[in-house]
Amino acid sequence: MLRDLCPALANKTYFNYGGQGPLPTPSLEAITCSWKRIQELGPFTNDVWPYVAKEIQATRSQLAKLCGVTPHRIALTENVTTGCVLPLWGLPFSEGDRLLISDCEHPGVVAACIELTRRQHLAIDTLPVKNLRHGANDQATSDSLVLERLEQHLKPSTRLVVLSHLLWNTGQLMPISAVAKALSHHPQQPFLLVDAAQSFAQVPVQEAAVASDIYAFTGHKWACGPEGLGGVALSERVLVEANPTLIGWRSLQNEGHLQNNQAELFHHDSRRFEVATSCVPLMAGLRCSLELLETAGSQQERLSQIRQGSQKLWNQLQQLTGVETLLNSAPAAGLVSFELPQGPPAPDVVQQLGNDQLWIRHLEDPICLRACVHITTEEQELNTLTTALKQLACKGEPSN
Amino acid sequence: MLRDLCPALANKTYFNYGGQGPLPTPSLEAITCSWKRIQELGPFTNDVWPYVAKEIQATRSQLAKLCGVTPHRIALTENVTTGCVLPLWGLPFSEGDRLLISDCEHPGVVAACIELTRRQHLAIDTLPVKNLRHGANDQATSDSLVLERLEQHLKPSTRLVVLSHLLWNTGQLMPISAVAKALSHHPQQPFLLVDAAQSFAQVPVQEAAVASDIYAFTGHKWACGPEGLGGVALSERVLVEANPTLIGWRSLQNEGHLQNNQAELFHHDSRRFEVATSCVPLMAGLRCSLELLETAGSQQERLSQIRQGSQKLWNQLQQLTGVETLLNSAPAAGLVSFELPQGPPAPDVVQQLGNDQLWIRHLEDPICLRACVHITTEEQELNTLTTALKQLACKGEPSN
Repeated sequence: MLRDLCPALANKTYFNYGGQGPLPTPSLEAITCSWKRIQELGPFTNDVWPYVAKEIQATRSQLAKLCGVTPHRIALTENVTTGCVLPLWGLPFSEGDRLLISDCEHPGVVAACIELTRRQHLAIDTLPVKNLRHGANDQATSDSLVLERLEQHLKPSTRLVVLSHLLWNTGQLMPISAVAKALSHHPQQPFLLVDAAQSFAQVPVQEAAVASDIYAFTGHKWACGPEGLGGVALSERVLVEANPTLIGWRSLQNEGHLQNNQAELFHHDSRRFEVATSCVPLMAGLRCSLELLETAGSQQERLSQIRQGSQKLWNQLQQLTGVETLLNSAPAAGLVSFELPQGPPAPDVVQQLGNDQLWIRHLEDPICLRACVHITTEEQELNTLTTALKQLACKGEPSN
Repeated sequence: MLRDLCPALANKTYFNYGGQGPLPTPSLEAITCSWKRIQELGPFTNDVWPYVAKEIQATRSQLAKLCGVTPHRIALTENVTTGCVLPLWGLPFSEGDRLLISDCEHPGVVAACIELTRRQHLAIDTLPVKNLRHGANDQATSDSLVLERLEQHLKPSTRLVVLSHLLWNTGQLMPISAVAKALSHHPQQPFLLVDAAQSFAQVPVQEAAVASDIYAFTGHKWACGPEGLGGVALSERVLVEANPTLIGWRSLQNEGHLQNNQAELFHHDSRRFEVATSCVPLMAGLRCSLELLETAGSQQERLSQIRQGSQKLWNQLQQLTGVETLLNSAPAAGLVSFELPQGPPAPDVVQQLGNDQLWIRHLEDPICLRACVHITTEEQELNTLTTALKQLACKGEPSN
């Protein structure tokens, strides 16, 4: 069982998979083993290059398969933010272009958009999806509300839409391929940037990844890989129209001779968005974790198992006095967000639960608490969390 | 002895420290140990944050001490290119500004300058230092030639100078602090970007790092740390005047609440140039390697030992028929570059030596071969290389 291979899960009741997943022991061993092999063959010798090339190719291929795209569309990155921002800064914007950014995006990506806007004289509009949860009692209603809001907020000069696949705060699933379809009918054909931090390795992502221009993910959350390695699936359009930004030897067609013809300077595939030396041994670790997940069940089977857990938790929380779930209906995936209106402040709740080695996290916008359920989550853990929350829910001092 | 702790050195005669240094076993163990600790405490819990913060602080402090700057001037990076390019793209250029780039810079950095020039309508001039080697018989002559050339090529609108501390192809040491002093008298006070890939952990770097605006290095070459972790020392001026580029949560003052006041959005110290999640366990590995180097001797003692080896090798090569060293005088540090004008093409030489597990590398501009000597290099290895080169030097087929 995957759970038994994760030392992180042995001594705690863990619900922070959306922050960082546990690293299974075989994945750590694969990393160490890769490091030893590199030392044996290299580190910088003709003997080691085939090994390094094979590692990169195997990793790129595995990520490409999960995203349903060809490997030349996958750039390897250090984290999900780099995957979002690096190609973003290469997009061909003109002064006055507008970015439509959802109000549930990660602050890192939003800040990058703000700085880009300042530099290139663009403007930002907001796509409100945070309060969707109040009106949506099922996925179909939620989806059509998103598309309705999109229509309302798109402007003639909108050139980019930024929307997460699975909202990191409310846990709602966004209809990415339908959004992409709607954008294709817009006169400007805006680019679609998708933060897939929460969706990758949790829900099947092919349909969304294929439909997006920039679909950025990381290996260290739901995929249970090592921190420091992620990827981004790029559309053919981005590969053709976007310029590299943070450039290094990995971006170049020929490291030895810089071409005079600038069009031939950079790779024409995803590597134009890769930079320089990164930690190769992490690749073996990520692949090992992804294989362990596959062994545990198909994508659909794993999502079903996750949803069974999250829906059970959501139901239990619904029945607790003093606990309010953010969503009106059971979550589409493993993120369960809620508030304790009469309880202690959210950071205090986290620390008090943590004192008993029960770990959830708090979020600041909207202020709430979040518990993530993965396939490694046990029913007993759900009960432990519910019982603990029951005690805290009515414990807070009234604020007046 | 450090050498005995490096499995990479056990089965080969290794001269590619300038490409990548060997990873000592205690450093790999420190990395693995850090990963295990993160799993035990976390990976995403209030219990793990103090550990992660301590790792980052200890690493930043150790790098700051080596660079002779305060820790708030050190940004942690994935590699040397990121360290060069990320702050570079944040510098306050105006249309028409000129970049003066030495002709011995790494193609990754040069390509980034070319793309930046295209975007911001700048212009590039070249500072010729590649052929200095013909005229310089000692460091003092070399230094004054560099300063002379700098004066010749600086223009009134030069806004940035890019120069490596130790040239990766010829192995010559550049007088960085004297260059910085000269630039301070220039009306535009150009920024000074220094690629320290070859100097860091090989020669004492404090004087140069303190004098530079951007002094970028990596841990995986002469420092014998893991691949995927480096740093950059930034001047106070860069911290104040440059804008962040590749932005992520690590760049932000407050991840939870984006400030409306844009001046308060980003950290005011080096963290404005850090991005997002990276591989924390690598930090323990790099610190361990740096400590192993310190145990082996002071910076000055280690440089003396390196120079003894490189000068011995240079002398031996000087005496070989069919071998021409690139430098007229013994190298100032551990890089020994040379040509075999009558020998096989450089890549073939590398492969033929590699067949006997003797590893040097070739470079494309100028076309040459390069052997690096570190404190782990043994006299016997120098002799092995000299003997092998003697056999190859006159082996090539005449080209006509």
